[in-house]
Amino acid sequence: MEHIKKYIKENKSRFINELVELLKIPSISADPAYKKDVLNCAEEVAKSMKNAGAENIEICETSGYPIVYGDKIIDNNLPTVLVYGHYDVQPADPLDLWENGPFEPIIKKTDIHPEGAIFARGSCDDKGQFYMHIKAFELMMNTNTLACNIKFMIEGEEEVGSENLGVFVKENKARLKCDAILISDTGIIANDTPSITTGLKGLSYLEVEVAGPSRDLHSGLYGGAVANPINILCEMIAKMKDEKNHIMIPGFYDNVMQLSESERAEIARAPFSLDKYKKALNLSEVHGEEGYTTMERTGIRPTLDVNGIWGGYTGEGAKTVIPSKAYAKISMRLVPNQSDKEITELFSNYFKQIAPKSVKVKVTPHHGGEPYASPTNIPAYIAASQAMEVTYGKKPVPVKSGGSIPIVALFEKELGVKSILLGFGLDSDAIHSPNEHYGIFNYLKGIETIPHFFENYRKLR
Amino acid sequence: MEHIKKYIKENKSRFINELVELLKIPSISADPAYKKDVLNCAEEVAKSMKNAGAENIEICETSGYPIVYGDKIIDNNLPTVLVYGHYDVQPADPLDLWENGPFEPIIKKTDIHPEGAIFARGSCDDKGQFYMHIKAFELMMNTNTLACNIKFMIEGEEEVGSENLGVFVKENKARLKCDAILISDTGIIANDTPSITTGLKGLSYLEVEVAGPSRDLHSGLYGGAVANPINILCEMIAKMKDEKNHIMIPGFYDNVMQLSESERAEIARAPFSLDKYKKALNLSEVHGEEGYTTMERTGIRPTLDVNGIWGGYTGEGAKTVIPSKAYAKISMRLVPNQSDKEITELFSNYFKQIAPKSVKVKVTPHHGGEPYASPTNIPAYIAASQAMEVTYGKKPVPVKSGGSIPIVALFEKELGVKSILLGFGLDSDAIHSPNEHYGIFNYLKGIETIPHFFENYRKLR
Repeated sequence: MEHIKKYIKENKSRFINELVELLKIPSISADPAYKKDVLNCAEEVAKSMKNAGAENIEICETSGYPIVYGDKIIDNNLPTVLVYGHYDVQPADPLDLWENGPFEPIIKKTDIHPEGAIFARGSCDDKGQFYMHIKAFELMMNTNTLACNIKFMIEGEEEVGSENLGVFVKENKARLKCDAILISDTGIIANDTPSITTGLKGLSYLEVEVAGPSRDLHSGLYGGAVANPINILCEMIAKMKDEKNHIMIPGFYDNVMQLSESERAEIARAPFSLDKYKKALNLSEVHGEEGYTTMERTGIRPTLDVNGIWGGYTGEGAKTVIPSKAYAKISMRLVPNQSDKEITELFSNYFKQIAPKSVKVKVTPHHGGEPYASPTNIPAYIAASQAMEVTYGKKPVPVKSGGSIPIVALFEKELGVKSILLGFGLDSDAIHSPNEHYGIFNYLKGIETIPHFFENYRKLR
Repeated sequence: MEHIKKYIKENKSRFINELVELLKIPSISADPAYKKDVLNCAEEVAKSMKNAGAENIEICETSGYPIVYGDKIIDNNLPTVLVYGHYDVQPADPLDLWENGPFEPIIKKTDIHPEGAIFARGSCDDKGQFYMHIKAFELMMNTNTLACNIKFMIEGEEEVGSENLGVFVKENKARLKCDAILISDTGIIANDTPSITTGLKGLSYLEVEVAGPSRDLHSGLYGGAVANPINILCEMIAKMKDEKNHIMIPGFYDNVMQLSESERAEIARAPFSLDKYKKALNLSEVHGEEGYTTMERTGIRPTLDVNGIWGGYTGEGAKTVIPSKAYAKISMRLVPNQSDKEITELFSNYFKQIAPKSVKVKVTPHHGGEPYASPTNIPAYIAASQAMEVTYGKKPVPVKSGGSIPIVALFEKELGVKSILLGFGLDSDAIHSPNEHYGIFNYLKGIETIPHFFENYRKLR
């Protein structure tokens, strides 16, 4: 397979430059102010597919942002691999914590990335990762080595819940027919410790509003006599967890899959240093559900986090106000076999139940997704594992992630196909945070690994 | 005293127009962006004193915003009244809830103000109220009826803690020498129920920061394993009060003056309708410390309110982030004999004590002030009470307010003089809120009442 290394070596600068150009587009799906940029990004993705040699390219309209489809069917008797990714990105704020503009990519060396990393929103999540597939496809086309049929489905609403992708998948089952789904939107443990994600958490994301008096009030004249929506919201959030950090929503744990002692022992065998973890985040202590390790807390236990809170005066100096309303965005990460719809309902009921009569509450579900688990004994997983073993020189570790890709469970339900989560990012890449970056090493290693997967998969099927 | 009514009738439109002009200046002391406007406002106040006939006018520089001084000494044998007020205003946000621009005053009729009210930030608190004194002084000068010596001290930092006024008072004791202090920065019960404020709460205002991981994190990859500063802040705020809404800071109630049964009975006799109160604020239930009535909760019990909270993603849509930090502004209203310095320290200690080891907390005191109580048997109070009895046709009710004018306790300490809180606003005037307004009736009634005070006070001394 020397042609792979050779092609990458000859095209390395262009591969990087093309990604840098793509990263300059602020395709933030959550914020309507960036609508033009998101649409523009879809066009650029379609062009890149075309340039790489794909056919039947279509920017498929939806009720939201479009899905870019393209394929290359070389032989109906060969297996077909569907590549999924997303061209939309998270909002970039807080902007003042970025060292460069989030959409003005720069390449810098870091301790973890001595070969340099590209700093920009979306560099790792997920532009840098889905673009590896387009470049690997280009490589296979130009070296006449494409081993399977390939279909691309790159969407623009992953960061806001993939609602329209769900509709698209249901309506395009024939077009999307495939034997395996390949997704690079996760990470590996370290650059010398490859891993493949075998579990994803589900997600229930809600926004809550607590309303007290009908207008903002002077906290002297009314303080202590009317419900302050901020105090009440805080008290209600405090009631979400007990002293042991167990979530107190009735029924929340009912369907949680309990792991056996041997499964927990397996998790404990994965390489992990609590000291390094704490140091990397400057934590004096970790914090979580009693009775579980850090790896278990992120990997196999459902969680609840407030992702945003606001209310009252937040400017400079002091304002003595009791605000009329206070708000929070709250999300729960779910594990097999929790259902996001059920959990969303349990949360809403509990939130309304614990509200004192002196306030009115509103709960608005934002989006959700079911958890997912992938077996390690199917041809597609084995093909991916063997591909990494060749390019990294080490067998990858199967890992359960705390992250969510809500659409993966739906792919299985609608298309009857398991997804292989062959990601190349690192935890330290700061996805969803300021200074997100993606290692040049990781980007090129991904482009190198993917053609091996196609070769292996063709043989194993 | 027919000359008073006559002068007001002849000058009514000008009185209103002059106030409207003053209200156009956005003199927000809390926000440095308005510095020029605050300074400009001080100039306008000085001009208005001069036009009314004051002497020795000086815009006294401080480390912050200036204090406008002016006086008229007619006879050293007559008593001297010091008038205090403030020309700075609260921030105007949330702007979208205003029906007119907060600094584009309009006059509208309302159910409570059938003669019309001026809608603008600062209309009641306190531009409209201190300006009554300048117009009443003009009236007394132009009708040759000034009955006492008068000194004006109008500051520009009341809404941010009056710190520099404290320094100014200490350094200008001779210049500020007086027999009574007259302040209109409070309210009456209703336009047919005059009242005089005989108690003010103290204030301790702090900002808190809870810091978790050193950067914003992806809530999937890290959720449940690291301390989320928002969840922790909420849990800490929830620990500020117990189920009965008693404040749980150790030592908080130690110095609280307990009222006798007869004093509580006196409070219960003041006109108050819980139904009207709830209806005015659209509340289904009031909310406060168990064992106390609404009037007691605001008047005689110390309180704790979160005035602002923020952290994480607060934009449109969803972002799955664990923020690095979360913040809140928290204030406590104090009653005799609590000390704001002591309470600030007790709060800080408790806040640090209840913080879990997984976070770092910071507590920054903003400003404070001691509580105040005024007797009802001193000449200045009697002069004010009799003045209102003439102009309203009813003896005013003495009332303890939940509001704070932190400088009043300091006046007593430094100048040895009690302040008379002769305010004319209404609770429904929405001070510190969107659509603040001040009734034309109240404005003119104030201008009418003040000269009576001067007459009475001269006789009673």
